[in-house]
Amino acid sequence: QEKKFQASLSSTISFVQKNKDEIRKVIHAIKVGIALVLVSLVYFVDTFYKEVGDDNAMWAIMTVVVIFEFHAGATLSKGLYRGAGTVVGGGLGGLAAILGQLVGGIGNPVVVGVSLFIFGGAATYVRLNPDIKKKYDYGVMISILTFNLVSVSGLGGESVIEIARERFLMIVLGFAICICISFFVFPMWASDELHDSTASKFEGLASSIEGCVEKYFNDKENQSARPIASFKGCVSVLNSKAKDESLLKFAKWEPPHGKFGLSHPWEKYQKIGETLRELAATILSLEGSVNSPGESLQALKESIREPCEAAGSSLARALSELGESIMKMRRCQPGASIAPKLKVARQELSQAMSPFKLGKLDNAEGFAIACFVF
Amino acid sequence: QEKKFQASLSSTISFVQKNKDEIRKVIHAIKVGIALVLVSLVYFVDTFYKEVGDDNAMWAIMTVVVIFEFHAGATLSKGLYRGAGTVVGGGLGGLAAILGQLVGGIGNPVVVGVSLFIFGGAATYVRLNPDIKKKYDYGVMISILTFNLVSVSGLGGESVIEIARERFLMIVLGFAICICISFFVFPMWASDELHDSTASKFEGLASSIEGCVEKYFNDKENQSARPIASFKGCVSVLNSKAKDESLLKFAKWEPPHGKFGLSHPWEKYQKIGETLRELAATILSLEGSVNSPGESLQALKESIREPCEAAGSSLARALSELGESIMKMRRCQPGASIAPKLKVARQELSQAMSPFKLGKLDNAEGFAIACFVF
Repeated sequence: QEKKFQASLSSTISFVQKNKDEIRKVIHAIKVGIALVLVSLVYFVDTFYKEVGDDNAMWAIMTVVVIFEFHAGATLSKGLYRGAGTVVGGGLGGLAAILGQLVGGIGNPVVVGVSLFIFGGAATYVRLNPDIKKKYDYGVMISILTFNLVSVSGLGGESVIEIARERFLMIVLGFAICICISFFVFPMWASDELHDSTASKFEGLASSIEGCVEKYFNDKENQSARPIASFKGCVSVLNSKAKDESLLKFAKWEPPHGKFGLSHPWEKYQKIGETLRELAATILSLEGSVNSPGESLQALKESIREPCEAAGSSLARALSELGESIMKMRRCQPGASIAPKLKVARQELSQAMSPFKLGKLDNAEGFAIACFVF
Repeated sequence: QEKKFQASLSSTISFVQKNKDEIRKVIHAIKVGIALVLVSLVYFVDTFYKEVGDDNAMWAIMTVVVIFEFHAGATLSKGLYRGAGTVVGGGLGGLAAILGQLVGGIGNPVVVGVSLFIFGGAATYVRLNPDIKKKYDYGVMISILTFNLVSVSGLGGESVIEIARERFLMIVLGFAICICISFFVFPMWASDELHDSTASKFEGLASSIEGCVEKYFNDKENQSARPIASFKGCVSVLNSKAKDESLLKFAKWEPPHGKFGLSHPWEKYQKIGETLRELAATILSLEGSVNSPGESLQALKESIREPCEAAGSSLARALSELGESIMKMRRCQPGASIAPKLKVARQELSQAMSPFKLGKLDNAEGFAIACFVF
């Protein structure tokens, strides 16, 4: 009986490890479902007690749907930007509405319309600035929306301040529900994902380098045995810029947790990513020249085979060691263990092919040594 | 008098050409301002005639703020996805609300809550799929929101179908305003931008190649005279993937206009972009090896100087010719004019440095020749 239980337990564990990404997605979907039901409950209760006017409770629902993102940091930042946008837009919109009501009569819609045109146009122009678009796009959009809704609702003669207050309360309520569920129920940290993906990039590049050296020195026949799958890792590193940047943006918002302290050096992930992307580009172009036909004399190839292979493998080992040390967050001794080996390999390489072929692996190494500088 | 007018006219024209991007942004901001005022006018008129219930007119405003994007194609696609999401979410939400009302009593909120949990969770899971996220993210989000609002509003005993109908009408109204202004008042076509940026990439890479060759053969002193600004073009080509993809996505939505026919081969822009990015990576790594110190003997360098320079300049000329032909959309004669020159340059290059250095410019050329295949 116990054995059977253990077997099923271990098979469950292996299933979980295999489908980690899928399970994370399912958990996120369930979390969103719970948040939606909770916030609808608020709406439902309110229709009986009429604490909050008319359709204002709707804003809590809208907030939950719009700001609940996969990563905890993304949810937090989107919610805060939404809140800030609402405050700014609502405040200015309220001013415009009150100004319009003071003027009164036919002047009211004119004042509101003109202020709407000016604020909407100016905010839209600001939104198009790439720097602002990157960070504050959502907040600016919400401020335009709130400005418009608040200023216009004053035209009907309703109490603008009351409406703004209730809507803001509802948005805060929706935000609170999102944050509680996102942070305390199986949180998905962008920081974890960024950290793991950075560490695994080293591994991918290491195997690419090994594959490249192997491909160069093996015959055409053997080559087909091992496909160029290893270069996919290179390409994916090369194209990782956008994803890394968004993860970094969210990771900065996340509170300290687990192995990440308060002043975790998030900026360095960006630098490492840049360097690895350059290295990936070098490896890819190296692969391109390995492929170019009729290139090298066989004898020449043989003469440089050994140092090249040695350099390639020590480079690959250095990379995977670095990746592992990042993954486990322990300091590796670049001075003590890795750098000298690389230097020796480089010297051997230079001696073996000083007049020709130089500047080939050199280059990849240059980047790898640059890796030590951070 | 006339001369003065002409002078001011020409200075205006040169100002416009210099600040083209800024002026486009300002025009877009004014367009958004007009759309906001127009849609608020609807809201304003409605508060007197009470055609549309309560806060439903608000949805027109929200639609305009959210879907009005810079490019015409982006506005159209976002609007259509919003419409589709509203119809799907509203239809299913209405069903859930009616089902709840049929059950009645305490069963009503339970039915609505359960269906909300299931629909919200399932749609959120679907949204996390990368392929769906790329294309339909916004539509799915809107369908969750509409489902939630419609199904929950049935709990208050209001007529669900009436609410859904009015809100949908308001969304269509907002959509119509956006499309009219976006398409007929100084339209910003994503297709134009994609076309121009693709053509100008050729020019940038051509100047990078020239700069690279020049840098390699010039002395250290002369080098500082010409900064490495030309490589910025390379880096920007390398990082252009995300922007190109979004432009391509929008360009496909745009109706035929100007020089772009109904079946314009948009897919090819993607292929050209891929090839140019590979070429940019090659040039960058070439630049890296040019930089590596103490590399080449001066005599050797001189011996290959002429063919290298010839190859570099013919490559650059070929690239800028290709770029120009794309820009002006006339067919260039690759067989007749460009390819033979490149072949000659390549042969000279091979002869000059057959045993060593081979596979350096070779590679960049290989890509350039691959450019002809499309």
